[in-house]
Amino acid sequence: MVVEDEAVDPRIAQQSLQPRKADRIVGAQQFLHRRDVDGEQETCGGAALDRSLGHSMLVRVRARQADRAGGPADAQNGQENSGALVAGVDRVHVGRKPSLDPLCRLLGDELERVNQLIVQRMQSPVALIPQLAGYIVAGGGKRLRPMLTLGCARLCGYRGGRHIALAAAVEFIHTATLLHDDVVDASDLRRGRDTANAVWGNKPPILVGDFLFSRSFELMVADGSLRILEILSRASSVIAEGEVLQLMTANDTRTSEAAYLAVIQAKTAELFAAASRIGAVMAERPLEEEEALDRFGRNLGIAFQLVDDMLDFSAHPTELGKSIGNDFRDGKVTLPVLVAFARGDKGERAFWRRTIEKQDQRAGDLQQAIDLVEKRGALAETLSRARGYVATAIGALSIFRDGTERRALSDAAAFATERGF
Amino acid sequence: MVVEDEAVDPRIAQQSLQPRKADRIVGAQQFLHRRDVDGEQETCGGAALDRSLGHSMLVRVRARQADRAGGPADAQNGQENSGALVAGVDRVHVGRKPSLDPLCRLLGDELERVNQLIVQRMQSPVALIPQLAGYIVAGGGKRLRPMLTLGCARLCGYRGGRHIALAAAVEFIHTATLLHDDVVDASDLRRGRDTANAVWGNKPPILVGDFLFSRSFELMVADGSLRILEILSRASSVIAEGEVLQLMTANDTRTSEAAYLAVIQAKTAELFAAASRIGAVMAERPLEEEEALDRFGRNLGIAFQLVDDMLDFSAHPTELGKSIGNDFRDGKVTLPVLVAFARGDKGERAFWRRTIEKQDQRAGDLQQAIDLVEKRGALAETLSRARGYVATAIGALSIFRDGTERRALSDAAAFATERGF
Repeated sequence: MVVEDEAVDPRIAQQSLQPRKADRIVGAQQFLHRRDVDGEQETCGGAALDRSLGHSMLVRVRARQADRAGGPADAQNGQENSGALVAGVDRVHVGRKPSLDPLCRLLGDELERVNQLIVQRMQSPVALIPQLAGYIVAGGGKRLRPMLTLGCARLCGYRGGRHIALAAAVEFIHTATLLHDDVVDASDLRRGRDTANAVWGNKPPILVGDFLFSRSFELMVADGSLRILEILSRASSVIAEGEVLQLMTANDTRTSEAAYLAVIQAKTAELFAAASRIGAVMAERPLEEEEALDRFGRNLGIAFQLVDDMLDFSAHPTELGKSIGNDFRDGKVTLPVLVAFARGDKGERAFWRRTIEKQDQRAGDLQQAIDLVEKRGALAETLSRARGYVATAIGALSIFRDGTERRALSDAAAFATERGF
Repeated sequence: MVVEDEAVDPRIAQQSLQPRKADRIVGAQQFLHRRDVDGEQETCGGAALDRSLGHSMLVRVRARQADRAGGPADAQNGQENSGALVAGVDRVHVGRKPSLDPLCRLLGDELERVNQLIVQRMQSPVALIPQLAGYIVAGGGKRLRPMLTLGCARLCGYRGGRHIALAAAVEFIHTATLLHDDVVDASDLRRGRDTANAVWGNKPPILVGDFLFSRSFELMVADGSLRILEILSRASSVIAEGEVLQLMTANDTRTSEAAYLAVIQAKTAELFAAASRIGAVMAERPLEEEEALDRFGRNLGIAFQLVDDMLDFSAHPTELGKSIGNDFRDGKVTLPVLVAFARGDKGERAFWRRTIEKQDQRAGDLQQAIDLVEKRGALAETLSRARGYVATAIGALSIFRDGTERRALSDAAAFATERGF
């Protein structure tokens, strides 16, 4: 009764997938051809990205004007709000609209190669895995982290082919985290679509997240750099720490800004930092450049999360492509809440304590929360801080030669604070 | 606004842990001194293991007689059941009681060093992580997988110190899997104690599982063997695949035995195989020995899971230290169910379809399931198969020199089918 490695093949199993909403299932081969959710084709560096995977951010930016015209019911507040935010802080590049386009052009078809590898490496004889993984991978993600890996490798003069697999590994870590996050937060929507847990329940996303996480390490091991494995395994630990820390600061309006920053640095900025840093490692550049890219990614990551937290109180949910008020409903203590709480009067503080700490939320509370963060300038303050981090991120690139690569990365960084409103 | 790596320290956060049962929390420093749940001290190779972490299996074996005297309400069936099982198949070593003791003696204080490293590497400034990780790590696990790594390294003549960290890495992968499994299965009890999710809810165990998984890779990366990283990252992917496949075969009495074997090979045997195989890798032994150890671990892992699935229908839950009927309640299609279904009459098949497929379970159904698997000889059949796999596992060791190491590993393997009843 010898059992060999290949003696029992999982393919033989009768795979009786019973998702809660069968019509929502997107097979791996289907999403290869899916249209962007906005129904518009978009090109990046000449390559039609939506032929491979959703890349809807650019589309959304272009469609912004159109969306504004027919906004949601509470668009009025949002309009005022956007106006206040935009007026509050100058753009980083005055007179030029920050965009991901230059980075896309620079990367040419490299991002498409990353997408193809992602599709290839999420395959499994266990049918539910590519179904579920494909669903989230195709879910309109921006591929920002792999773009950082690719872009930073280019900035460091890297000309080999390893960056493709490492960018895919970075995206797999991110995707695994998203799957687990949505289960932990019991989120129903991500980027305007049902979350994986809303479609399949909690069990498959937990296990498929584990699978993608393992796959990520398989990709890194195949690459063969212990230094890069060290950076990304460390980043994974820190991300998990950040997620746990976030649980522990939830529902607590006494959370300090420092604690909030510790959470977002760990849960978001760490992977941005690692994704950027490995560009220098694979190009075998000196430690100084590694550290500069780490600083670039880290500060950009913080800015990115600040904007994300701000947009949770945005009155333009369709533009962000995600539902608003999720953090509020979860009792997450983000910077907009901390600022509004600190600047609020007695009645306002009582509101935040009731809704965030006691989780006693009633109809109209989200709208009142949106009104309060606006009234106290908490969104403008959050955006202003985010722009400060972006400026630091861009500054970190100053040790590199000025050129197409540096300008493309700077532009992508500046774009982080100009998105979604 | 520069953010450095260490600029924001998660330690500054106010960590407001609010577990559902605060009195259940076991701090990392506390469980270093906890007594075994059975209240009895046990030594392994001269080292008092319960000084570091629970090692209750040996204790339970010794306490078996005592437990039998005062069994649970349904002890009568169980007694008959055990009798039938023991009578059905001869022990692998006639006249000698299989035991983990020889392997424990061989390892000396190495397992204690593994335990110490586990405690050290599960630390985090985020307090909930060592609390929760300590709770499950101390929860009476057998450390069977790290023992395999240590024992196989010794068998291959390895005399260095790397096996300690790699054994800890193996245990971290296992612990992460347990945490996620218990959430997925919504289990309340593991080895007689509340599961982590029963104490803290689902959110922390998902995230702490991710943390331990990352830590495992950090340990492997520090070890520096890409070959071992390859083996264990591959094993992790396969485990996750097996868990997803198990979800898909649940509630389906048409599941084939081959599909069932595919599930247990992936979810359980793969890590046993990898844990054993890396012993040869670190000793730089030829591929033939690597493969022999893989076969040893893989067959042992299948036997181990078969026995586990059998014990879910055991009438002696206190001896196993876990509650029975969990798989039945989850609708898991294990070998005892498959055999009882295949051998059952029309009425019995209707019973299995109602309880397993339709998940329509009523009072008394578990007892009826226990009666049916016993009536149809499904437990004896499962045990017999398990013993066959154990024999294959022991046979795989035949290429190694006969000596203390080989005999200790053979004895530990034989013990797998003699535990818990």
